[in-house]
Amino acid sequence: MSKIHHFTGTEDHFDWENVTPLHYTSDSIKDTAGKIMIGADDGAEHFVFRYFRVEPGGHTTLNDHHAHPHGVMILHGRALVTVEDKQHELCPRDVIFVGPWEHHSFAAVGDEPLGFLCVIPNLDLMAKLENAKQK
Amino acid sequence: MSKIHHFTGTEDHFDWENVTPLHYTSDSIKDTAGKIMIGADDGAEHFVFRYFRVEPGGHTTLNDHHAHPHGVMILHGRALVTVEDKQHELCPRDVIFVGPWEHHSFAAVGDEPLGFLCVIPNLDLMAKLENAKQK
Repeated sequence: MSKIHHFTGTEDHFDWENVTPLHYTSDSIKDTAGKIMIGADDGAEHFVFRYFRVEPGGHTTLNDHHAHPHGVMILHGRALVTVEDKQHELCPRDVIFVGPWEHHSFAAVGDEPLGFLCVIPNLDLMAKLENAKQK
Repeated sequence: MSKIHHFTGTEDHFDWENVTPLHYTSDSIKDTAGKIMIGADDGAEHFVFRYFRVEPGGHTTLNDHHAHPHGVMILHGRALVTVEDKQHELCPRDVIFVGPWEHHSFAAVGDEPLGFLCVIPNLDLMAKLENAKQK
């Protein structure tokens, strides 16, 4: 079954119909909030579309690293992206692939909030694949 | 290894550094061109980011259907999306999930070209999962 989430936000505050907020509590994350735009509730078995908003001065988890990769498109604002020991500045519409286990973080640059789409594989699916590889 | 594709286009013509054009030849597709933004060449094993541009009056493959789902975000222009027997109009930033085997097509509405991000799972990965399920 297809599922639509219409954009219901403004230029200053992105939002969509019927999306699920993501809450994080960690000392190494600052002024970042997320939403699941397409996920298991929509019947998506393979990937998850998340939107993250990072307030000016904020950042996602510092030095985050995990088995799942990220496919990211910047939607608004500017990002200082740290991957391993390199830093890159990204602008709206730029895309970045962050590979498995690469240390990474996304910080807002300047006075505007940063917003980006971040796609990950479904984590249950990743586990199934690992199991299949080991058989 | 992370990989960045900076946006190098304009408001009228979206483009990115080092992306791979996709060519389609079919009687049931009209004035549509694609690019792979993140894919196997970037080391992405789980998903593919594609951008499609549909010229005014054009459409993607009519009644397309296949095992892989789509996660779509409209980037510019307006879309008339047909999924099975229903039609929906989508605007920039709207997202839609199209499930496996659902008949679908995306047509440009009005005088502007339609542009959208379309994420699919890696098709080799889908085949591996199907094999794993059958064992």
